[in-house]
Amino acid sequence: MEISRTRESDKSTSDAALAALTLARDDPQPLRIQLVNELKRLILQRILLPGAKLPASRPLAEELGVSRVTVVQAMDELIAEGYADGRRGSGVYVAPDLPDHTLKMPGVVAHHSPPLLSSLSLLSSPLRPGAPEVRLFPHETWARLMLRAWRVPAEGLLAAPDPAGWPPLRRALAAHLALFRGMALDPAQVIVTSGANEAVEIIAHTLLARGDGVLIEDPGYPSMWRTFGELGLRTHHVRVDEDGFNIAKPAGGARAALVTPSRHYPTGVTMPLARRLALIDWASHTDGWIIEDDYDSEYRYRGRPLPALTSLDESGRVIYLGSFSKTMLPGLRLGFLVVPRALVERFARTIAERGARASLMMQPVLQRFIAEGHYATHIRRMRRLYGRRQAALLAAIARHASGILEAAPEPAGMHLVSRLMNGIDDREAEARAAQAGIIASALSRYFAGEPARQGLLLGYAGFDEETIADAVARLAQALK
Amino acid sequence: MEISRTRESDKSTSDAALAALTLARDDPQPLRIQLVNELKRLILQRILLPGAKLPASRPLAEELGVSRVTVVQAMDELIAEGYADGRRGSGVYVAPDLPDHTLKMPGVVAHHSPPLLSSLSLLSSPLRPGAPEVRLFPHETWARLMLRAWRVPAEGLLAAPDPAGWPPLRRALAAHLALFRGMALDPAQVIVTSGANEAVEIIAHTLLARGDGVLIEDPGYPSMWRTFGELGLRTHHVRVDEDGFNIAKPAGGARAALVTPSRHYPTGVTMPLARRLALIDWASHTDGWIIEDDYDSEYRYRGRPLPALTSLDESGRVIYLGSFSKTMLPGLRLGFLVVPRALVERFARTIAERGARASLMMQPVLQRFIAEGHYATHIRRMRRLYGRRQAALLAAIARHASGILEAAPEPAGMHLVSRLMNGIDDREAEARAAQAGIIASALSRYFAGEPARQGLLLGYAGFDEETIADAVARLAQALK
Repeated sequence: MEISRTRESDKSTSDAALAALTLARDDPQPLRIQLVNELKRLILQRILLPGAKLPASRPLAEELGVSRVTVVQAMDELIAEGYADGRRGSGVYVAPDLPDHTLKMPGVVAHHSPPLLSSLSLLSSPLRPGAPEVRLFPHETWARLMLRAWRVPAEGLLAAPDPAGWPPLRRALAAHLALFRGMALDPAQVIVTSGANEAVEIIAHTLLARGDGVLIEDPGYPSMWRTFGELGLRTHHVRVDEDGFNIAKPAGGARAALVTPSRHYPTGVTMPLARRLALIDWASHTDGWIIEDDYDSEYRYRGRPLPALTSLDESGRVIYLGSFSKTMLPGLRLGFLVVPRALVERFARTIAERGARASLMMQPVLQRFIAEGHYATHIRRMRRLYGRRQAALLAAIARHASGILEAAPEPAGMHLVSRLMNGIDDREAEARAAQAGIIASALSRYFAGEPARQGLLLGYAGFDEETIADAVARLAQALK
Repeated sequence: MEISRTRESDKSTSDAALAALTLARDDPQPLRIQLVNELKRLILQRILLPGAKLPASRPLAEELGVSRVTVVQAMDELIAEGYADGRRGSGVYVAPDLPDHTLKMPGVVAHHSPPLLSSLSLLSSPLRPGAPEVRLFPHETWARLMLRAWRVPAEGLLAAPDPAGWPPLRRALAAHLALFRGMALDPAQVIVTSGANEAVEIIAHTLLARGDGVLIEDPGYPSMWRTFGELGLRTHHVRVDEDGFNIAKPAGGARAALVTPSRHYPTGVTMPLARRLALIDWASHTDGWIIEDDYDSEYRYRGRPLPALTSLDESGRVIYLGSFSKTMLPGLRLGFLVVPRALVERFARTIAERGARASLMMQPVLQRFIAEGHYATHIRRMRRLYGRRQAALLAAIARHASGILEAAPEPAGMHLVSRLMNGIDDREAEARAAQAGIIASALSRYFAGEPARQGLLLGYAGFDEETIADAVARLAQALK
């Protein structure tokens, strides 16, 4: 009895899941591929359980309004890739042991790393700040460019690569920054990195000595504080006000300042021009260094961005950090540094000594992606999409979370900071959200000292409007 | 007259090059693709010069013994990809301006970074130690796997990736190490990195504290010493004898030892079993850590490798470093760590805090490359090739450099250490070699203190037999 009841309930779950399958006729992807991907997703998310029987091809084809051949081909593909088994004469079943595509590691998770798994499964949860929209990335174009770059690779890609990056990519980045950020650069000033953490290590090894003081925004980006600490630097946290970081406040003695002037992380404040000029003035008078982290300047929905510090600086004291993990794919692990002209050789030496960390493999691909205009097109599309998603998040808060959450529109970015209106501590709110399957980071985590504000960071970029509305409703329920 | 003579000699070079074209009938690659790739190679290597006329399709088809259609299609492909121009009625010519395949940066090199360029051009010079054969890498297969992994990427590749690496790759590596190195692993013990330098940083941040002592082989790998220094660790250099590193020698107090037991870098000595066991004994009695750098164990031409320390260790004190930059492509920037079971969670925490440096993009590609057997095939092919090239290097030394250089056969590796027989200091020899366009590193550079031996490191893996013979002749001339 027990067993057959379980089977029955599994079956109805499967049927419900299959009934929810929708294929988009106006999608350029063939219906067969859409169907394969949908079924894979249901299998990987354990909505279709191992061993479950998939519906016969004829009724499924009728239900979906596609030809039976499409369904049969999709099933064959699932079988070929090991997601399903075909038993002669008795239909197709979800494979009892799933192939190499899931995030779980049998025999590992259970014994050794439960925290790893639980944090992983949360990483794809709704409202996680910093998650870009990855499903609408032009994967087909990107894959085609990979093939073009590597089927018969250029000689220069095969010899020991320049540890500062693939020169054509550095030229493409210089041209892109000239166009979009008004920075007049020599491509030798651009250094390709594996991301912001490595970039900060390179800067510290080139320009700073153990024990030097670094000014850091508070609130700010805790992973960066750790990086500075590991490098043996003393961090001085400077409380950010309604105009962002203020160089007038800190006591003397610091050798560098890490700032996010375009859009303060995580509060979203933009640093006004006067503060920018004061900061450059400080650097040129004290021989200090400014590290300008321009982490998401691409996503501005209203108004024009202020000029980057780098483009205002005439004394060569600003190092600029850019990244592609947030504008393209999180797994890309490519970012870059722009260093002052006079420091090109010193940085080149550091990088030659440390060895390159950034893979060369995607650099010619990214170069063509930028040079052929796909990057600009992708950014434009995402900007429109994220603008709509921010509006959807605000509408969902107004509708489902009135009296619980409050948030104001922002002209830029990928997340909003919402206030908690019913007196719940933000760490408590974060924990309750996580229990409801929603990642909403507590603002207090981003403060080094006593938090001056509380709130929840809600990411909207990576989630469709329906998911956002649903997640906000669940979040409001959890915070009641 | 001058011009026509030049053309004449270009023409005969082209003819000679084309006559040397050979297509392999038993190769699974279509003859058309083989022909396209061969012609591209001749164009990129500037054997067929820009503007040179390619032979007409009929005689070329006859010479190669293929159908004329194959040749015409191959030419069309070259034209479509910009390698050649078709002039109506007058045949096909190598494109006068080649596509984006060269390393030069106009306007950059000249003004700001001459040292960068000159070191770059030396990087592809003959005899550079550590250079693998990259032209014979199965680029077509690799590019096809890229397309398969990323055209319609698996869900797990798009969400925020596990910073310890793509789980299916970690499983493939565990299976590979079980098969080839006798290591019984749980895939969670495998952590994907961007290479050895990052691996050492991760180990230090997880297991060591600032000021801890680390035992390091002398001679050894200077870039690693710098990495340890930057991490605030004290390095104790232990002179290596004819059996490699000896744990009996060093004074107490060290917390870790970095060793290359399979094949000492750079001298090539293999550590005997008794020393390996003594080292493990030291670690388990002092709670020390052994870092086993197994940097080129794949290339063994005679005999069988001794078991890795990791597979002898029962007390969980060994961390194993592996790399793909030397066995595949230098630009890949993928390596891995194997950590003891009991440390999986501690390492996972370090990596989550530091952020991943290794790109995710090539991880599913490498996983399929290993799982489908291409990696093992490539290693086997390269092992045979490198064995022949080592013999060619020894023959060239005997023939061209008698009384100047002397070297003995080695059972493994990618370089030989040759002795200088005419009393020249090895740094002086290195400088003279560089002037002749040859990179041959002085052995004394690999010593931390007073060098106990002098010599030149000569790489043979990445260079064909003719290049090796020619380079040795030039080197002998320069050292006379």
